Amino acid sequence: MKRSLGVCYYPEHWPEDQWPDDAARMVSAGISRVRIGEFAWGLIEPKPGVMDWGWLDRAIDVLADAGLEVILGTPTATPPRWMLDRHPDMLAVDATGHPRRFGSRRHYCFSHAGYRAEAARITEAMARRYGRDGRIIAWQTDNEYGCHDTVLSYSPAALSAFRNWLAQQYQSPEALNRAWGNVFWSMAYDSFDQIGLPNLTVTEPNPAHAFDFRRFSSEQVVAFNRMQVGILRRHTAAPLTHNYMGREVAFDHFAVGADLDIASWDSYPIGFLSDRIEASDNHKRHYLRQGDPDMQALHHDLYRAVGRGRWWVMEQQPGPVNWAPWNPAPLPGMVRLWTWEAFAHGAETVTYFRWRQAPFAQEQMHAGLLFPDSSDAPGLAEAAQVATELKAMPDVAPTRAPVALVFDYASAWAWQVQPQGADFDYFRMVLCWYRAARELGLSLDILPPDTNDLSDYAVVLMPGLAQLSAPMLAALESYEGRALVGPRSNAKGAGMATPVPLPPNLPGMDLRVSAVESLPPGVAEPLSGGGTIVHWREHLDGAADILETDAAGAPLIARMGALTYLGGWPDDTALRRLIAAACTEQGIAADPLPDGLRLRDTGSHRFAFNYGKTPVTWEGQVLPAAGVAWRAL
Amino acid sequence: MKRSLGVCYYPEHWPEDQWPDDAARMVSAGISRVRIGEFAWGLIEPKPGVMDWGWLDRAIDVLADAGLEVILGTPTATPPRWMLDRHPDMLAVDATGHPRRFGSRRHYCFSHAGYRAEAARITEAMARRYGRDGRIIAWQTDNEYGCHDTVLSYSPAALSAFRNWLAQQYQSPEALNRAWGNVFWSMAYDSFDQIGLPNLTVTEPNPAHAFDFRRFSSEQVVAFNRMQVGILRRHTAAPLTHNYMGREVAFDHFAVGADLDIASWDSYPIGFLSDRIEASDNHKRHYLRQGDPDMQALHHDLYRAVGRGRWWVMEQQPGPVNWAPWNPAPLPGMVRLWTWEAFAHGAETVTYFRWRQAPFAQEQMHAGLLFPDSSDAPGLAEAAQVATELKAMPDVAPTRAPVALVFDYASAWAWQVQPQGADFDYFRMVLCWYRAARELGLSLDILPPDTNDLSDYAVVLMPGLAQLSAPMLAALESYEGRALVGPRSNAKGAGMATPVPLPPNLPGMDLRVSAVESLPPGVAEPLSGGGTIVHWREHLDGAADILETDAAGAPLIARMGALTYLGGWPDDTALRRLIAAACTEQGIAADPLPDGLRLRDTGSHRFAFNYGKTPVTWEGQVLPAAGVAWRAL
Amino acid sequence: MKRSLGVCYYPEHWPEDQWPDDAARMVSAGISRVRIGEFAWGLIEPKPGVMDWGWLDRAIDVLADAGLEVILGTPTATPPRWMLDRHPDMLAVDATGHPRRFGSRRHYCFSHAGYRAEAARITEAMARRYGRDGRIIAWQTDNEYGCHDTVLSYSPAALSAFRNWLAQQYQSPEALNRAWGNVFWSMAYDSFDQIGLPNLTVTEPNPAHAFDFRRFSSEQVVAFNRMQVGILRRHTAAPLTHNYMGREVAFDHFAVGADLDIASWDSYPIGFLSDRIEASDNHKRHYLRQGDPDMQALHHDLYRAVGRGRWWVMEQQPGPVNWAPWNPAPLPGMVRLWTWEAFAHGAETVTYFRWRQAPFAQEQMHAGLLFPDSSDAPGLAEAAQVATELKAMPDVAPTRAPVALVFDYASAWAWQVQPQGADFDYFRMVLCWYRAARELGLSLDILPPDTNDLSDYAVVLMPGLAQLSAPMLAALESYEGRALVGPRSNAKGAGMATPVPLPPNLPGMDLRVSAVESLPPGVAEPLSGGGTIVHWREHLDGAADILETDAAGAPLIARMGALTYLGGWPDDTALRRLIAAACTEQGIAADPLPDGLRLRDTGSHRFAFNYGKTPVTWEGQVLPAAGVAWRAL
Repeated sequence: MKRSLGVCYYPEHWPEDQWPDDAARMVSAGISRVRIGEFAWGLIEPKPGVMDWGWLDRAIDVLADAGLEVILGTPTATPPRWMLDRHPDMLAVDATGHPRRFGSRRHYCFSHAGYRAEAARITEAMARRYGRDGRIIAWQTDNEYGCHDTVLSYSPAALSAFRNWLAQQYQSPEALNRAWGNVFWSMAYDSFDQIGLPNLTVTEPNPAHAFDFRRFSSEQVVAFNRMQVGILRRHTAAPLTHNYMGREVAFDHFAVGADLDIASWDSYPIGFLSDRIEASDNHKRHYLRQGDPDMQALHHDLYRAVGRGRWWVMEQQPGPVNWAPWNPAPLPGMVRLWTWEAFAHGAETVTYFRWRQAPFAQEQMHAGLLFPDSSDAPGLAEAAQVATELKAMPDVAPTRAPVALVFDYASAWAWQVQPQGADFDYFRMVLCWYRAARELGLSLDILPPDTNDLSDYAVVLMPGLAQLSAPMLAALESYEGRALVGPRSNAKGAGMATPVPLPPNLPGMDLRVSAVESLPPGVAEPLSGGGTIVHWREHLDGAADILETDAAGAPLIARMGALTYLGGWPDDTALRRLIAAACTEQGIAADPLPDGLRLRDTGSHRFAFNYGKTPVTWEGQVLPAAGVAWRAL
Repeated sequence: MKRSLGVCYYPEHWPEDQWPDDAARMVSAGISRVRIGEFAWGLIEPKPGVMDWGWLDRAIDVLADAGLEVILGTPTATPPRWMLDRHPDMLAVDATGHPRRFGSRRHYCFSHAGYRAEAARITEAMARRYGRDGRIIAWQTDNEYGCHDTVLSYSPAALSAFRNWLAQQYQSPEALNRAWGNVFWSMAYDSFDQIGLPNLTVTEPNPAHAFDFRRFSSEQVVAFNRMQVGILRRHTAAPLTHNYMGREVAFDHFAVGADLDIASWDSYPIGFLSDRIEASDNHKRHYLRQGDPDMQALHHDLYRAVGRGRWWVMEQQPGPVNWAPWNPAPLPGMVRLWTWEAFAHGAETVTYFRWRQAPFAQEQMHAGLLFPDSSDAPGLAEAAQVATELKAMPDVAPTRAPVALVFDYASAWAWQVQPQGADFDYFRMVLCWYRAARELGLSLDILPPDTNDLSDYAVVLMPGLAQLSAPMLAALESYEGRALVGPRSNAKGAGMATPVPLPPNLPGMDLRVSAVESLPPGVAEPLSGGGTIVHWREHLDGAADILETDAAGAPLIARMGALTYLGGWPDDTALRRLIAAACTEQGIAADPLPDGLRLRDTGSHRFAFNYGKTPVTWEGQVLPAAGVAWRAL
Repeated sequence: MKRSLGVCYYPEHWPEDQWPDDAARMVSAGISRVRIGEFAWGLIEPKPGVMDWGWLDRAIDVLADAGLEVILGTPTATPPRWMLDRHPDMLAVDATGHPRRFGSRRHYCFSHAGYRAEAARITEAMARRYGRDGRIIAWQTDNEYGCHDTVLSYSPAALSAFRNWLAQQYQSPEALNRAWGNVFWSMAYDSFDQIGLPNLTVTEPNPAHAFDFRRFSSEQVVAFNRMQVGILRRHTAAPLTHNYMGREVAFDHFAVGADLDIASWDSYPIGFLSDRIEASDNHKRHYLRQGDPDMQALHHDLYRAVGRGRWWVMEQQPGPVNWAPWNPAPLPGMVRLWTWEAFAHGAETVTYFRWRQAPFAQEQMHAGLLFPDSSDAPGLAEAAQVATELKAMPDVAPTRAPVALVFDYASAWAWQVQPQGADFDYFRMVLCWYRAARELGLSLDILPPDTNDLSDYAVVLMPGLAQLSAPMLAALESYEGRALVGPRSNAKGAGMATPVPLPPNLPGMDLRVSAVESLPPGVAEPLSGGGTIVHWREHLDGAADILETDAAGAPLIARMGALTYLGGWPDDTALRRLIAAACTEQGIAADPLPDGLRLRDTGSHRFAFNYGKTPVTWEGQVLPAAGVAWRAL
């Protein structure tokens, strides 16, 4: 397969006579795909039931005539204002009880049946019109589910749906009371209709209550997407995708992805560094114009898993954005670097967001490949360079990485519901583990939590999985590589309860976590092998071999056979040491890289990326800041 | 009297066949008392009016048969879900107007007459059934009044009750307008029905309005408790208690305590350090696993005063808890230390919370004396050690301390209503004074604000009393020891007004505070005698002797006879110096102790406690970290 | 004209028999003016329609008989409680939807027609009674419009008025949709009645929507004030004023001021330093008791512009206040310094707030010239000293400053609506520029954004003007001095849209800002001429001369003729350098002053003020801390 470049385009924003020139310039820059339509409901259906397909027909004509392949989005993230007249209660409600009003986007509650029917109606209409059109090479459902904290809704519609969901899950209030432990604090319910949403309680709600609401809410997203998929499948054979947002963990992307053909995600490295990465001020200043060197790669690997091998970057940051607390410009070369990094991780397509910077509305400060005056922005030349480079090299071959990391959305919910330490966060921990492995030059695959076979991986990383699935437990039983497991692994049973016997209950491993501790910032406990434990530590006992202890000799890391259990959150030094040791034992090279350098192996090439601000030497060649290099393997 | 150990137990959480073994293990650990029932309303009355006493009868049988004395709690902190169907408006309302919903605990408004009647009904039912049962050796009313910020409610019920309360207090709107100074900003009312609660005003409400709401709210708690006491007294001769929460100052514990026989409090040293102590990061890191060395002792002395000599620790932290921002485990030995410290301050009973860690619901991460798998947690052995040690020594004899500190809940409200400096807090200041005295090896008694005789104390500490009571003023008039008074002393008249003549208006002392200043963090003004003034300073004039000044010669500390007035908030250095000087003058030894060491004298023994992380020498013996020692006096 | 001192007085707070003595003491201190009445609605109209003029008549008699000139305020900032019974929906509503309740002040929505009619009624009544009374030498409308965040209201009344305002502005929904760019995210409206207020949207609202709401809200204030002005003009020939609050930018003071004769403002230097100045902890500690050395002067110059030459300080801080996070007392001499600084900038009158500290209600901790016990507070002697000094010197003559700074309220709204960097603030930037100029000993004039002639100024400073007015563009076209313009200059067209051609579109200057960046704290980019760029930088291209670049040679400062464009936010070092260079080129002396020293030239005198804590030498004489000096020019 040939890798390709794309761009997000909004023909409805520009005079129709500008479209042909735009299309021609895209093509001449080496762009072959264009995503359109995903916010255009108000243009397609300006009044209820009155469809205006003309402009969209013509836009597709112009783009396709120029040689571009079209990705068409369903416009359900932006219902028009008249929708509210038909469904005044369709708005999501925030945790303090305020309806989230019209005036931006994503102003709908996933549980609202009326809105879901409207979304089905517009999806059906678009699918009927364009489903068999060969110029549409893929469809995108909605846009960035969950963005702007829109998965959880505390609306009457959500309440009603949640009660039905609970009734389905538990069948009787008695069963629910038992599962949740509602004997505690006299919280038992006599009927499902007595159950509220877990907001605005006097102190924290039952974690089982909160966690079930998280599961329910995720499933509402899955169901909403599945509804669109079902309709589209009836009308089109084109592959279906959704563009997930970075570090959005409020719903299960594996579950949504199972209904789709391709995963895609929206990659904003500099915005994410400012907005959604826990890091020191020094780290943030150092990578100010490059983005965190592991954040994108982690998502690339994650969506390769979500897409079962097929994945894209649907929106690639091309310059400064508008939505982060601070919005600096990328270092020259970074747009190219980000693009190549995606391809090195297996992306089929990288689509820039957006073609021309809009001079109006919310995103007018968000860069495009063109400035608002239609002149070239710096990203355009970098995209064109990638297009040229792509043509000159053979396709990068997919392969399996030697190291795997298990990623689980439900664990993110579990530890949000019950962090136990104010700064404990699942994604944060995963990124720490992933970073440590990458600092050793490793390439990784990400696995879903219900993986039933680990035998292809020499080393498996499993931080913080709240509950191990049956397939995973079975896979661990026969595993012969090295699995690094913990902390908080398998610490939750059904209903967020603490299992008895106590965790981790790993196959064949006699080990017990009797007590846990969260540690405030600034507290670090030395590990006997080097580095420290931060944020979290556990009290271990059992017959497993003790590998490392704290200064007083209390066990912190234990091993039995293939399984090594980490009774704490190791800092970067310790994590690198532990992962390197496991790799060395398995015969995998794992040597620390210079600061800012990252590698990625495909089946055919080794790629090197310099995220640093200064040149770095790799295999004898000097990579400048934002430099990319590769060699055949 | 013999000191005893107890434990909090929830038979309703465990299979009935486990109860006998639990009871036997309690007894074998040296535990003689068990608290039960305080959250069990839903079990006792599973449907409205349908009582199920059987399980509770049997639980009492099992426990008592094992030799345990039972403390029984009224379950009014956790009304069952069906209660809301009967009284949909019983919920407290927060300051932003949101009803505080069902799903945790304490979801009631103290002012709701309907709920108060229900609480009376269940109290009456329990009292009728168990009041004459000699196995119940004490009763606890409700649980932790005020916990989770539940004293102040902005509900319709509270509004109506507040208006009635104001009408009773002031008799006419004109009188209220005069008392509050409502001529200011045209705030006068024509009728009591026009008065709102003091939330959501454009800028701060009249401090008199806010302060009266605080007084009213406190009295609602007193009345709620008194209702239960009145019922219980008709049915039982057993002593009555309530378990107050640490650093809970939203209602007057002296006033609640006046209706009860025993005060008790819930001591969570490590949770408090993380959650409710103003201290440097260094201090918090140093005492991470021990708790603040003075926080517990202050509460012990406070509740000895609230209980008029009779007091318990009703809940003692036995390991990591779940509710603080961070939750580390205690240093080995701290559970023993905390327990002995309570006894040294005169506790009759120390009751651990809880017996077995629950594997479900909100507190599943809260340690018990047993782990969830019923194995021993570390606290159990420490409790058993104390039990053994208790048997081996004669009872500690009560005595009067040489130094007293006056504590006043109304001052806490006054300075919350009108802090004048963003970080000015009454409790914080009291803890600073108390700490300075304890760092000098002193033992203290705490006195209520209406104390009418100070003659037994050589030194009296009186920081920040907003309004001196008539008895206290009379006591000061004839006082012959050394009283350290101020800042902000007697600075408020009725209705939070500034008195004219200006404060402090101390008997026989010609001194005026003309102006006051709050100082931001980082600003410290040198005191001529050493140390600095922080947070607060006053401008003094009058004929009193000036003891100390600032660098420019402006008076900061003045004295006339027994009274020394502090026109500012001295730092720890200055406070220690001032208290030591007063003690020395009165012939009381007051020498700085090594870091982390604290002493407490009973009538018969001197106890020493090492809160530090390293050993410390005391009277020739080495106390290890978490060490406890005592010698006869 | 002779400069005079005044004081704010509340006869209604004090026994009538105290008035004559108060008046006599005012006069003997050299005070000649007294402001009264602005919060007295409840006293004037104790019941709806029942007027009580007697007390006010007598108060005016007493004051005027003592020789004092009276300034009378309309009491519309404090409608009495009975007003709410007539207009329950008159309250403003905050951004989260909560009505802002009775119990303090400013509890009205500017858009509420019913309240506006009541305000007209009381204004008419007062004007009829006192409009022709020669003893009333000026009238003040309302009090501190906007204080306590009261310009923006999200009430039903505001919603309705906003829709009407939009209909008036745009005439058709189609026109509004086009202007706002509502094609974006399908946000188009079919009718004005569908438009909501821009709060509680899912993510940020359209900036055009938010900005129009800011314009609307400002105009509501203007209209409210104009209504009062219209009534007063029919009954009085006395000058009209309003007392603006410091750093209150939510409405256009130039527009309100255009209807009035005199501008006045309320100057609280120490409160402002604590509450509303971005500065380092060091700066705040250094000026703790003096206030920021440029904050007052900036406001003085601003209100001289708003008042078209005629301006007062209506409330001057006389000691510690009550409303800032921390409230220290002024350094001795600062009350005098602040007063003289106002006169040096051209104030006609400086009025202290307040005469006697009230012992009750919200402001009981706010100092006056008297303590609550009627004894002299320190401010009184300093005021009296100024009065004496005033008599001894000839009047300070007004003059034009050599340097002008353009100030624009709409730019403050634009950058609040779209900061792009979390700490980007218009007022903050203006203060930085003003400070840099003042550190060079310069005196400045402030100009409104529609100034059509700059020719009197050798140097003009124009930071961050979102949209340059047509007169300003014309003025720049022919300007022959030195104008320092930028960053973000002319970056917005109508409806907050980005103009195409791209900014700044300055007359005769071939320069384009293609991209912008916001920079987080701690990031500073060196300027080739010295100093750094912080907070903000722009990417420039065009034919203008490049004066300075970053380290990589990218242009940051460009010049063409009179215009120098700054593509970033220079730090203090760079700003001083740039302004000094412009001044030098224009033959204006601009030399750095010692820390804390500030100068101000009138037409006749040069004044020097020492804001520092230590003495400083100026023209051979030593100015002590808080010292003031002057010499004839």
